[in-house]
Parts: sequence; C-alpha cells; structure tokens
Amino acid sequence: MSSYNPPLNDMAFTLAHVLDARSQWAKIPAFKDLDQDTAMAVIEQAGTFASELLAPINATGDEHGCEWTPEGVHTPPGFREAYAAFVEQGWPALACAPEHGGQGLPHLLNAALYEMLAGANHGWTMYPGLLYGAYETLAAHASPEVQSLYLPHIVSGEYLATMCLSEPQAGSDLGLIRTRGNWSNPDQVGNGARVHITGSKVFISGGDSDMSSNLVHLVLFRLPEAPTGTKGISLALVPKYLPDGTKNKVFADSIEKKMGIHGSATCQMRFEQAEGWLIGEPRQGLRAMFLMMNAARLHVALQGLGHLEAATQGAWAYAKERLQMRAPQRAAGMPREADPIAFQPAMRRVLWRLRARTDGGRVFAYWLAQRLDEAHHHPDAQERQCALSDVNFLTPVAKAFLTDLGHRSADEALQVWGGYGYVREFGIEQTVRDSRIAMIYEGTNEIQAIDLIQRKFLADGGAHAEDLITRMAQHAAIACARTPTRPFGESLELQIKHWRAAHEAILLRATHGIEHVLEVADDYLQATGHTMLAWAWTQIALACMKCAETQPTSELEARLASAQHGINYLLDDALPHWARLHRAPSHLASIQVDS
Amino acid sequence: MSSYNPPLNDMAFTLAHVLDARSQWAKIPAFKDLDQDTAMAVIEQAGTFASELLAPINATGDEHGCEWTPEGVHTPPGFREAYAAFVEQGWPALACAPEHGGQGLPHLLNAALYEMLAGANHGWTMYPGLLYGAYETLAAHASPEVQSLYLPHIVSGEYLATMCLSEPQAGSDLGLIRTRGNWSNPDQVGNGARVHITGSKVFISGGDSDMSSNLVHLVLFRLPEAPTGTKGISLALVPKYLPDGTKNKVFADSIEKKMGIHGSATCQMRFEQAEGWLIGEPRQGLRAMFLMMNAARLHVALQGLGHLEAATQGAWAYAKERLQMRAPQRAAGMPREADPIAFQPAMRRVLWRLRARTDGGRVFAYWLAQRLDEAHHHPDAQERQCALSDVNFLTPVAKAFLTDLGHRSADEALQVWGGYGYVREFGIEQTVRDSRIAMIYEGTNEIQAIDLIQRKFLADGGAHAEDLITRMAQHAAIACARTPTRPFGESLELQIKHWRAAHEAILLRATHGIEHVLEVADDYLQATGHTMLAWAWTQIALACMKCAETQPTSELEARLASAQHGINYLLDDALPHWARLHRAPSHLASIQVDS
Repeated sequence: MSSYNPPLNDMAFTLAHVLDARSQWAKIPAFKDLDQDTAMAVIEQAGTFASELLAPINATGDEHGCEWTPEGVHTPPGFREAYAAFVEQGWPALACAPEHGGQGLPHLLNAALYEMLAGANHGWTMYPGLLYGAYETLAAHASPEVQSLYLPHIVSGEYLATMCLSEPQAGSDLGLIRTRGNWSNPDQVGNGARVHITGSKVFISGGDSDMSSNLVHLVLFRLPEAPTGTKGISLALVPKYLPDGTKNKVFADSIEKKMGIHGSATCQMRFEQAEGWLIGEPRQGLRAMFLMMNAARLHVALQGLGHLEAATQGAWAYAKERLQMRAPQRAAGMPREADPIAFQPAMRRVLWRLRARTDGGRVFAYWLAQRLDEAHHHPDAQERQCALSDVNFLTPVAKAFLTDLGHRSADEALQVWGGYGYVREFGIEQTVRDSRIAMIYEGTNEIQAIDLIQRKFLADGGAHAEDLITRMAQHAAIACARTPTRPFGESLELQIKHWRAAHEAILLRATHGIEHVLEVADDYLQATGHTMLAWAWTQIALACMKCAETQPTSELEARLASAQHGINYLLDDALPHWARLHRAPSHLASIQVDS
Repeated sequence: MSSYNPPLNDMAFTLAHVLDARSQWAKIPAFKDLDQDTAMAVIEQAGTFASELLAPINATGDEHGCEWTPEGVHTPPGFREAYAAFVEQGWPALACAPEHGGQGLPHLLNAALYEMLAGANHGWTMYPGLLYGAYETLAAHASPEVQSLYLPHIVSGEYLATMCLSEPQAGSDLGLIRTRGNWSNPDQVGNGARVHITGSKVFISGGDSDMSSNLVHLVLFRLPEAPTGTKGISLALVPKYLPDGTKNKVFADSIEKKMGIHGSATCQMRFEQAEGWLIGEPRQGLRAMFLMMNAARLHVALQGLGHLEAATQGAWAYAKERLQMRAPQRAAGMPREADPIAFQPAMRRVLWRLRARTDGGRVFAYWLAQRLDEAHHHPDAQERQCALSDVNFLTPVAKAFLTDLGHRSADEALQVWGGYGYVREFGIEQTVRDSRIAMIYEGTNEIQAIDLIQRKFLADGGAHAEDLITRMAQHAAIACARTPTRPFGESLELQIKHWRAAHEAILLRATHGIEHVLEVADDYLQATGHTMLAWAWTQIALACMKCAETQPTSELEARLASAQHGINYLLDDALPHWARLHRAPSHLASIQVDS
C-alpha cells in the first residue's frame, strides 16, 4: 500500500547546512525573526498534514476519480474534508503578505509544503495549487475594488482559483486564443471595469468542484478590436458565484478522462456572457500572467521533486523487504535461501541513483525558492536583481528538468517492484501516471527549453550564464582545496568547462539561424540541469564535511555516498547532450515531413 | 482516435533489401518455395487482421477491462469474436511444423504478425501470445499420448495456453517455487505420467477467459522429495477441462487491477489436487521451459517494436495536422498564423528520433527472427550452430533493449500531443501504459542484462562477441568503401571499437569479482543495443544505395534520412553507458542499505 513519509531530516539538512537559510533570513527584514527550529516546526506540521490527511486518500482518489453531474463536479471521497482542514490550518496563507492577511513566510517553506503535498497526493494538490498564483496576480494587478472583493477569500483558501488559458486550437500558442469579452458599460473601461466573457476553455484544472463555496477563474480573452496574436490578449476575473450570490454563466460541460491525477477535475469550460472584471490594463493580460509564472513553474518543479521523493522512499522500502535470489555479497544475518533485493548490484544502483537525484534535485529547487525570496525581499536592489536573474534563467530548467527526472525516476523505480509494480495496489504505477502531466502543463518541457535557450541564454548573449559560472567556480575551488571533497570540485570544474563550451557552440549556431539553436534546445536544458545537479552535489559534500568535523554519523556517511554516486555515475547521463550541442546541424528542415 | 496502419512498405523493404530473405529461404529446404510476394501476401493479410479487427477494440478493451465472476472471466466486448476470426484464419498455425498440422512458415513472418498484433492491441494479443511457446514445449517434451491429446488443439488455437511460473514469493527467483505435485499412480512415473498439483500462482496471463473452449496450463512445481532451488522443479500440463469434459480443480480466484493491458486477464490461480501430466523428465522442468524462451523473449521484443511503430505513426500523423505557432522555416502553402508542429525544430527532432529507432529496431528484431529460422532449419550444422549462438547472445538484448525503447519512445511521443496526449481518447497514453509491462515480464530487463553479461558474454570469454564483430566489420568495410555510405561505415567502426573496449573492461572487472561485473550489466546491455542499431542503420543505408541505383524515390530518401539521423544523433545516447563501463567500481556494496 502506498504511504508517504515526510523527508524531514533531508529538508532540515538542506535548510540548515546546505542553504544556510538562517543567515539569509537574518538579512531580510521580513524574515528576521525566523529561525531553523521555527521553520522546521512549520515543515513538520505540513508533513503531518501530507502524510496523515493526503496520503490515505491518494489511491482512493485515483480509483474513484471525479464525477461530473449537471449540478457540478463531485471530488473523490475525503477530498472535501482534507481541504477543509487545509484551510482551517491556514496553509493557503503561508507565503502571502501580512498586509493581505497572509503569514508572510518564505517561498522556501512553501516549497517544502508543496513538495510534500504533491508527493503525498498530486491529484488533490491541484485544487489549492493555483491559489498562490491567483493571489500574486490579484495582489499585483487587480483594482482595489476587486482586491477587496476577492483577495481575502483567496488568501484564506475559502475560494479556489483556476487559470483559464488553453482553448482547443490554442495550447502552447496562446496567440490563437478566441474567447471574447465586451465592456459591460462602455463608459467604464480599464483596470477593474466590468466585462462580459464568451468562449470555450479546455484543460481547466479544478474548473468546477465541491471543495469550496466559490471559485474565481482568471480568464485570458480578447477585447473588441484587439489585434491578433499575443498582443491582443486581456485578463479577467470571472467568479462562479457573483457577489450577490447568483450563479454566473460559467459552465463546466465535461471532465477529461486522463492518464493520471484522476482526483483532479480537468474541465471543459463554457463562458456565456459571463460577468467579470478586467484585471490589469487592457491587452496586458499575458504580461500579468507571466509575472506569476516563475512561482507557478517552480511549483510544478516541486511536483517533480515530490514524485522523485515518493518513488525513492517507496523503492528503498520495498527493496529492503523483498527477498529474491542470493546476492553476490550477502546481507548480514540472512541465513536464508534469498537476500533482500536491495543487495543485488542491479537494484542497488537503481536505489542510489534515485536517492542521488532526489538529494541533488531538492538542493537545486530549494535554492531557487530561496533566490525567489531574495528577488522579492532582499533589502539591496542589486541583490534583488541578481536573484531575479537567477530565477528567470533557472526556472525553466527546474520546471522541465525536475519534472522529467520525477517521471523518469518513478518509471525506473517501478522496475524495483517487478510484476507488483505494474499492479495498482502498490502505488508506484500511479506515481508514474500522475507525474507524467507535470512535463506538459504550465508550458510543455519543450517550451521551457525554448524559453531557456532563446529568451534567457541568447537574450543577454550568455552574460548571466557567465555570472552563474563565477559562483559555481567558487564552490568548485573550495571543494578542490580539501582532499575529501576534491573529486567533487574537479567534477564540477569539468561540468563548468562543458557548460561554457556549450555556450560557445550555441552562439556559433545562432549565427547560422535560430533553427539551428532551437534543435538543440532540449539538449541544452538537460545539460544545464545536470550542471545544476553537479553544483548541488558539491554543496552537499561541502556541508557533509563541515558537519562531520563536529559529529560524524552514519546518516552523514549515506548523504555523502549519495552525492558521490551522483558525481561518479550520473553526470555521465549528460554526455549525449554535450555531444549533440557540438554536432553539425541536422538539416532535417530540408526533408519533406510528409515523406 | 487511435488507429493502426500496418507498416507494409517498411516490412517489405526490410525483407527484400536489408535481410535478402529470399536468398535465405532458397537455402533452406523447408522454405524453398517461399518468395517475397507470397511472404508479403501473408503479412498483408496479417496487417488487415490487426488494423481491421484488433485496432478497433483496443481502446474499448482498455476502458472495459476484464470482469471476474464466480463462473469465470469475461473478456472485453469483441475480444471473443476477434479470436474466433484469428483461429478461423489459421494464424496460430503459421510457424508450427507441418507434421503437427502447422503451416511451417518462417519465424520471420511470425515476427511481422506479432509486431502488428501487439502494435494494434497488446491486451488482446496476450491471449494467443503463449500458444507458440506451449506448442514448442509440447512438441519437444510431451509424451506421445499428451501430444495427441493437446497438440492439435494448440496448433489450431482451439485451446489457449498459459505459463504458470510466478508465485507470490517467487518472481525473478523461480528457485523459491512452492507448488507441489504427487504422482497419481506411484507405479507410473516419468514423462507423461499423471500428477496431482496443489499450489498458488500469480500474474497468470489469460489464466481464465471466455475466449476458447479449453485452456492448458503449463505449471512449474516440485515433486515429493525434490531438492530445493531450481534443480528440483518439474513441469506439468494441467487443463481447465479434463478429456472427459469434467472441470479440473483449477480456479482463477481474482484478476489484477493493472497499469495497462486491461484487456488481458492477469489471474491469481489456485490448483487444488488438480489433475495433469508430467511434461519431460522429473526435475527437468526449467530446462524444458528455457528451450522455448528464445522464441518467447523474441515475441516480447516484438511487442516493444509494435509499440514503437504505433507511437511513431501516431506522432507523425498528429504533428502534421496540429497547427501551433510559426516555425522558423515555415511550411509550404501555409498562409496562416500557425504551421503544423511537425515543422517546429523540437518536434521534428522527436519525430525523426522515433522513426530512426523504429526502422533500426525492426531490422535488428527481424534479423534475429531470421537467425532463429536458421538455427532451426539450416541444412548445414555449423551454420545452425552459429545462428543459435547469435540467437542466444542477442535475445536478451532484443527483449530488454526493444521493450525499453518501445516504452520510452511512446512516453516521448506523448509529448507531441501536448495536453491531448494525457487524455485517454487520443490513445498514446494507453500505449505508454501497455508498453510498460514488456520491460517486466518474461524475465525483467535487469534479469536479461545479467543473462547477457554473465551467462552469454562471460561464459565464453567474449568469443561469440568477437565473432559478431567480424561480421559487423565486414558491413562497415563495405560502407566505408563508397562515399555516400562512408559516414555509416565510420560510425559503425567507432561503435565496434567502443564495444571491444567494453569487453576488455568487463573481463578486467571479472577479475575483481562478479559484483563489479553485475553493476554494469544494464550499461552493457544498453550499449550493445545501440551497437546493434548502428549495424542496422548501416545495413539500411547500404540497401538504400543499392535500390537508389536503379530507382531513386522520395521514400528511399526518407529511409536514408532516418538511418542518417540515427547514426548522427542517436548513438550519442550510448555515451553514458560506454563511460560507466570504464568507471571504477562503485563500492555501493560497502554502504549499509538501511542507512
């Protein structure tokens, strides 16, 4: 049976020893009273919520799925109750600003919360998953009137929120959106003005549900005479129930039958002259949405990490219990005909691979959350800008690389269970199915790769990448200076060399046309992700050595072994990507695609 | 909606120009009357069966699944009727020997048949999937009495067959089997003697169904006083209905809820003093089963190929239709705001990657089927032996590498559909789920890797691998001799160099202990698979050049482009595996697994 153990030790180690979170909080006025114990108390409570309330309804949520009725969508058994507890315990407000009724805690803690929610029950987590994005959008762009009507209910989680972007003909290409809106009163236009919206939206997560008393839809649409393409797109808030309590003309016409996250209602929505309010200025809709995208994409990256953690802990637990065949080096105290499969070399390698990815992936994701906090709150403007540049550059990497790793690792972990892995009751096949969506939504991983190589790397000619290299090289030098960490430092230096060579290759490709750059976009993203893991494993090793000076433990030994496995064996997985970045252009464009 | 187009052109090209099947058939008395046209007529009919009878019930089979009732298992709508047509058309008898009522056609044609059955409907294909294995086992080992009772019904497909190996505590490790049997009459022991079988078996595909009038179970069990481990295992045939028409004491107690192949009933079986016959000699059960394993594992490899083909054709078709964004190099005659996504560099690379794998994978699998035919039927004993050595060495590679490639490619292809890929009605997510099982059953892919490196490569000190290299090098030399194919020849030479270096590394590892060999078993298998693809792409290129001399066509151009994409970009995917084969041993064994 599936269960979920909050990885509290790993999180505490990452915060205290790898990221030195307390030193950062001390520099930021908003977080100056926060310390490691308080932070871990919050994370521990979040872990209890995830393991005790969400994990038990994960498999049943998958089995039952959601039910569409003409009166509305019913969520699986227990989902409503868990959400009521989530609101009651104040989780939606965690990272919202105190002036809006939030707790004002760092994104870093929100990251730990959302990693655990997704790891314990991805389907359920879809419902509150868009609250923070809606909060940020409304806090930054909505008129005071709209804010006063909706913001408190979003912060408390009393109302849920959706993002209505995709239409049947407009998925990755939002420029093709056809949903239209009119001013309700031609004399009142601009931010906060009333609009009537008509159109169809698809793939709307939580487009309807029985979890909350009201829902707000953030809808992309076109005002009359708007230009075609992305420049003509505006944003509106459209509630399910209007302030006077009447039902708005918003309809969830059906729900999708999907590969996974069955507990999440993915709705086809219809707006029939539905009433709403313009959010931000006319035709600035995409800009308003993009502002919230870094946080939203980081949340998806954390889903990838959550799946990675869930698969890893499940595989280790099963491999220690399941007895099959004798291992070449037998388990101690096993006077039997078979050893735990964790002792088989093939399984052992899978187990450590999973663990190394999880440990490294967590450091990367949490560091990015920390940088997001600095981008928002650091008192120094230059520090804020540098942090924001890190966030902009690396968010597409975190989103695509960690979701890819989460799904692929779950798929690899399934193999540990053998035939039982293919059977529903052991849970891992659900993780494989659930994790697959994170590679698609919030911008497909291909879109992330294009974003990275074109809008992030090429846009400044590689300047920010060089800035990252400077900081990585500092860690590499520190690691090289001491014998136990030298292999890490040397390995990180090698990755830096590869990364820099890749940058030169991309700049050269760009002189031949963007086609040649885009065809290696995915390789560049994967290679960059591995470079980030090398950096993370080096930082873990440095932290382990520091801790071991005062108190060596078997836990630290295992942590170091995991990082060592990463640099010794897993950076090889980047070799195909480095190689392809330097290959001649493919000339695939000259071959007829219908041949 | 999912559909399936039999890849007849690709199959015809492979048979006629790459494998030169006709020349081989001319040398083998049993096939001397067979020619390309006759073979393609058979394959075409098989394609019609797959596309017209099986593809339409693939999605519905997934949706309905099987139903367990106390009276027996009901298969999904249409499954019975399709099976009746399959029997009526004589497909089960295709590769069976004429002396047993079979058609005596080559395994090569059976390979094309089973690739298409699995590509069109994997769940359905599970039912007849074990017929050939049962046929081979009974033909080789059963007593004349048992043969006369059951063989004709197996050849005709009137009876279905199962393999009852796994037990809850015995999956990859058959030495742990506990099912017991007694002689019915202590005076009649040995091959063909009556036995009574008691025990439980799990993961029995088609353990019960409403598809056929009777079922035979081939059951592994222990006779009284049998030694522990694999040496004590015997094989029995246990029918669902006894020759006098009474129901035998064999019970399907439940069916598994699985990730995929919902149309296939995976049963938990209980034998309660069930009546049967010993097949082969006492305690020779595993030997009897191993004999049929090459053909059975090749069938699973063909399932991987079938999924690869299905994913490839589906992705190409969708990518040519779906319009999103403008491509850097726009499609001709598209005066619109968006181009087909097939023109996007990121998608184009995925599409050609899928095609190159499919083309190369098919040549590898079909060549192995051809070698299996030679191993059985070649008039020259030395040729038979060499062919058998190829089959023994490469069958684990085909099974693991092609099923891995099938699943991974389906998973990559899903991305082409974006959000629609995650929705059931488009079919690709079913391919991802269905394809996953092929990496587990018939020996997990980890078991295949151990088989390859330990029982195949190390067993003869690498002698047969060198023999394969000699033949590969001949093709490489031919390719190098002509300008258009030189890049293929050079690339194949490089792979040979890598492969040979890997062999030296493995032999060196072996001197340090088997643990160090086994921890790179998977890398060796993956690297070997890529070497086989390099060989296949080179042979495709040679065949294309030969054909182009007489008649250059755009079809040939595309075929060559696919092979070129393979050698230029996809052999890089083997780099991590080559690298890890040369890495220092991991010493993971020295770390406590419970840390």
